[in-house]
Amino acid sequence: MEYPSKLLEEIIDQISQLPGIGKRTALRLALYLLKQPEEQSESLAHSILKFKKEIKQCRVCHNISDKEVCDICADASRDHRLVCVVEDVRDVMAIENTGEYKGVYHVLGGVISPIEGVSPSDLTIDSLLQRIDNEKINEIILALSATVDGDTTNFYLYKKMGQLDKAPVVSTIARGIAVGEELEYTDEITLARSIHNRVPFEKAIKQNK
Amino acid sequence: MEYPSKLLEEIIDQISQLPGIGKRTALRLALYLLKQPEEQSESLAHSILKFKKEIKQCRVCHNISDKEVCDICADASRDHRLVCVVEDVRDVMAIENTGEYKGVYHVLGGVISPIEGVSPSDLTIDSLLQRIDNEKINEIILALSATVDGDTTNFYLYKKMGQLDKAPVVSTIARGIAVGEELEYTDEITLARSIHNRVPFEKAIKQNK
Repeated sequence: MEYPSKLLEEIIDQISQLPGIGKRTALRLALYLLKQPEEQSESLAHSILKFKKEIKQCRVCHNISDKEVCDICADASRDHRLVCVVEDVRDVMAIENTGEYKGVYHVLGGVISPIEGVSPSDLTIDSLLQRIDNEKINEIILALSATVDGDTTNFYLYKKMGQLDKAPVVSTIARGIAVGEELEYTDEITLARSIHNRVPFEKAIKQNK
Repeated sequence: MEYPSKLLEEIIDQISQLPGIGKRTALRLALYLLKQPEEQSESLAHSILKFKKEIKQCRVCHNISDKEVCDICADASRDHRLVCVVEDVRDVMAIENTGEYKGVYHVLGGVISPIEGVSPSDLTIDSLLQRIDNEKINEIILALSATVDGDTTNFYLYKKMGQLDKAPVVSTIARGIAVGEELEYTDEITLARSIHNRVPFEKAIKQNK
């Protein structure tokens, strides 16, 4: 496409580098900004700059934070002996939204993926092993994606943690039929796992309350 | 949703003000920027600021431009007696991409829309009437959207231009069956119009070459 202006071409090039945004959407966004008051463009640009410059990683759990230690890690009322291992901040937010989890987190920063070139050293695995060594941790909950890469990472972590002197209990989140889902549309692997990992009925009743 | 960081919340608020981008997409974009080198955030922010500050409107046709007069209006090889009236810069780009139009443009900045509160004075209609008064214009091609608002604007412009001393010939772009479209899937109004505005076969053959 040929643009009537270099400035327009430049902003479209920049915006369309973002994932899931093509040239056409970028043009629409640029023309939208043009119609809005200048303050909107300014505050958008400034928050992008500020975000990248000032955002921190919690030095304990590696979650995104404004401080050295994030609010969850700093919260004394939470159970610091229970650590849930997740891929990124979106997973932390999803679990926090349930309002059911009172432990702390460890954000890996992804999963091991030979295809995408992510090796164990790219993740915060060493930091997790050190945490287990230094802190009093009873249980590690592995809450990674139910994908091949997620399973590989689960297995890698399980083996690494097993080699430690103070090996914690390791569990993974249950895989099964989602609440509200119909049995006939569930894939065979999930269905087989959900039968294999069946739960005593009395326990299930209590959770439904 | 509760965010683990004020900075993250701020950037998500800003990004999700853009049309078609929700909080979830904004979060994904923010986390993407976080993983990229700082230069990418910086050049994105700077091109947003620069775009809004430095972009100009061509003072002749009101198209987006880097200069006082845009490249199309400054091009002496184009036919300045033929003016195509369009809604915005995207329409100019679309017509330019056909490579078939050698006249110039007039960018209205939208169409008259009582529902969205756009009145004739919000558009560059006065400027168009002045152009017709000052320049030598033989023909005005109305190339607005085939919507109720587009038709209203067409009619308004047609009447206004008819009141001028130097009233130009006014035409609208043809509405009919798109090239490649099947007859049975065409709506009745378009089909009726395409029969009504039929074209001599010899003329149609020449265009197909």
